[in-house]
Amino acid sequence: MTDKNLSQLPPVNAVLNSLTKYGINFQMYDNVRVEPTDHSFLDAIKYAKKGEFDAYVAVGGGSVIDTCKAANLYASSPTSDFLDYVNAPIGKGKPVTVPLKPLIAVPTTAGTGSETTGVAIFDFKELKIKTGIASRAIKPTLGIIDPLHTLSMPERIVANSGFDVLCHALESYTALPYNMRSPCPSNPINRPAYQGSNPISDVWALHALRIVAKYLKRAIRNPEDREARASMHLASAFAGIGFGNAGVHLCHGMSYPISGLVKNYKPKDYNVDHSLVPHGLSVVLTSPAVFAFTAQIHPERHLEAAEILGADIRTARIKDAGFILADTLRKFLFDLNVDDGLAAIGYSKADIPALVKGTLPQERVTKLSPRPQTEEDLSALFEASMKLY
Amino acid sequence: MTDKNLSQLPPVNAVLNSLTKYGINFQMYDNVRVEPTDHSFLDAIKYAKKGEFDAYVAVGGGSVIDTCKAANLYASSPTSDFLDYVNAPIGKGKPVTVPLKPLIAVPTTAGTGSETTGVAIFDFKELKIKTGIASRAIKPTLGIIDPLHTLSMPERIVANSGFDVLCHALESYTALPYNMRSPCPSNPINRPAYQGSNPISDVWALHALRIVAKYLKRAIRNPEDREARASMHLASAFAGIGFGNAGVHLCHGMSYPISGLVKNYKPKDYNVDHSLVPHGLSVVLTSPAVFAFTAQIHPERHLEAAEILGADIRTARIKDAGFILADTLRKFLFDLNVDDGLAAIGYSKADIPALVKGTLPQERVTKLSPRPQTEEDLSALFEASMKLY
Repeated sequence: MTDKNLSQLPPVNAVLNSLTKYGINFQMYDNVRVEPTDHSFLDAIKYAKKGEFDAYVAVGGGSVIDTCKAANLYASSPTSDFLDYVNAPIGKGKPVTVPLKPLIAVPTTAGTGSETTGVAIFDFKELKIKTGIASRAIKPTLGIIDPLHTLSMPERIVANSGFDVLCHALESYTALPYNMRSPCPSNPINRPAYQGSNPISDVWALHALRIVAKYLKRAIRNPEDREARASMHLASAFAGIGFGNAGVHLCHGMSYPISGLVKNYKPKDYNVDHSLVPHGLSVVLTSPAVFAFTAQIHPERHLEAAEILGADIRTARIKDAGFILADTLRKFLFDLNVDDGLAAIGYSKADIPALVKGTLPQERVTKLSPRPQTEEDLSALFEASMKLY
Repeated sequence: MTDKNLSQLPPVNAVLNSLTKYGINFQMYDNVRVEPTDHSFLDAIKYAKKGEFDAYVAVGGGSVIDTCKAANLYASSPTSDFLDYVNAPIGKGKPVTVPLKPLIAVPTTAGTGSETTGVAIFDFKELKIKTGIASRAIKPTLGIIDPLHTLSMPERIVANSGFDVLCHALESYTALPYNMRSPCPSNPINRPAYQGSNPISDVWALHALRIVAKYLKRAIRNPEDREARASMHLASAFAGIGFGNAGVHLCHGMSYPISGLVKNYKPKDYNVDHSLVPHGLSVVLTSPAVFAFTAQIHPERHLEAAEILGADIRTARIKDAGFILADTLRKFLFDLNVDDGLAAIGYSKADIPALVKGTLPQERVTKLSPRPQTEEDLSALFEASMKLY
């Protein structure tokens, strides 16, 4: 499974050659949509059901890997309705109890970490919102993280996927702690894939954040910098192990309507025929506002993150942690030529009610914010993200 | 499965009460030997074969968990000869291809990390050496790391098991890198459980080392220090995830004859009727000599470890990395009242040939030393470890 752009490129060729060499009978599906929708998921599911495959190989970014997870799930549970496994409250969020087929994920971008997680995200067209399927059962069996696959990524794809890693690390490190979630699920099978920050996810979040701080700018600016690109590819998987277990919160929760309500934005370096806000960009644009908002709960973690990203915190006051992290992020994004806020990608104040409305159903992640938020809070966060610099 | 000391204590009671409460039919085996032997493994295996159990729960330190792994393995592979799965060259080191039953490990010490690894170590009585079984297949299904279980550990058990964590972290961080092992196995099924240091094991090794540096002394000195004991309990599992994948090298390779050839040493705080050198002590006593020897290969990693353990390296020269780490370790051990070298636990120069001979078959780990070693090198390392201070 891959997409049309990748189907002619070396990462896919390597897989096809290997399957052929070892006499493994296969079919290729290359109709994955970048930033997938319910329709594109259903098309892949139909293909998988018909093929009755013994195993799957997904070669691509998060869109491909997520689509393959969904195809594997519904082909393994053929009588299920599509909404059965979609996150509540949009879908029914049923636990997965059927066995799935093995899925080998070969990521070609350095951002999503999808090869390590039990999450598959898509645009629900009718509702104009992004949602997903979240279950440990759909986690790939194996990830093959080959840094050579990232050497051909265009500049903006490196940047936007790197911003996803940055937010995975920051959000999972500041997420509600695992022992503060409530209510407890009545049975372990009902535990969410996202459990809250914990001593193990913290290790991965901090480690990934240190790599982002050291290598993201180099990886964006110099496509020949193998050390930087390989390090970011690993950081993507490392952050994935962390957030795939701890979860993300407001940047991701608010990103889904930012992507879902896209107007005419056509990002540089993306070879697609439809408007889209790349996932990493939709996530990072609200990050200064979000961390200024959440810092009052775990200020020391926010300050630690700012320090890792280069802030001098020797004379910082703990109560300024949020502003310091927000300023550090603004500087980081400015240096990397990121669009100047939501206004620069086509939104205005008039869109805020719709953006808030699209965030409200994202409870799976917004509930993991360390600070609870009202609709007014969400409005203020979108407004503060209209312009960054 | 547990040992006689633990069978009356809260960690075992908690499990028995839970099994009873939920109506699960069970039998208890409490005949595990602390520092197990081939005979004690075989006794547990016989019990497991007869019981035809659906699942196992191991409650105890590394001795209990390792014995339970072996019982599960041979009960699941009833026609195998005991030597079939024992590490080569002592046994046949066959790959495990049979499915095992679920094993839940509940560690009550903070050292072995056995709940996270695919390794089971025992004393081979006839040969007077320690060896083991190593396969990802015997890794427990689940570990339950309850810090309350460590609050009743006596002082020396905290110390010795903590030294095991220290050496797991230091050895796995300095082990031969995964891409420098040779020759490559002809088939992935023949890959060793210990793969060499790698970007993922490095994360765990460094993280565990930082916890040891911060908390081990507090955990030893104050049994009421819950934060310290809980942190060391997690560090044990974290270091286990690292070394269970990367491996250990000379401290562990040399520790097996140090334990196996024990004379009359009876350690404080161990309630057993036989002489024994606790595993963690047998490992740590050679650590200053070992890291002085290996530092020339990755001096910057040795220096980084010394800094984490408290050394001031601002003016250090890279070529002194080994001496600096060795001195840091000696100071660390002196502060914790560790016996003054191998002489203090009953060995003399005359024992060195036997200690070397007992190390030679430990290729599974000694081959992971970043610096290859001759018999003369091993002799010199044992000699340098006779007296530490």
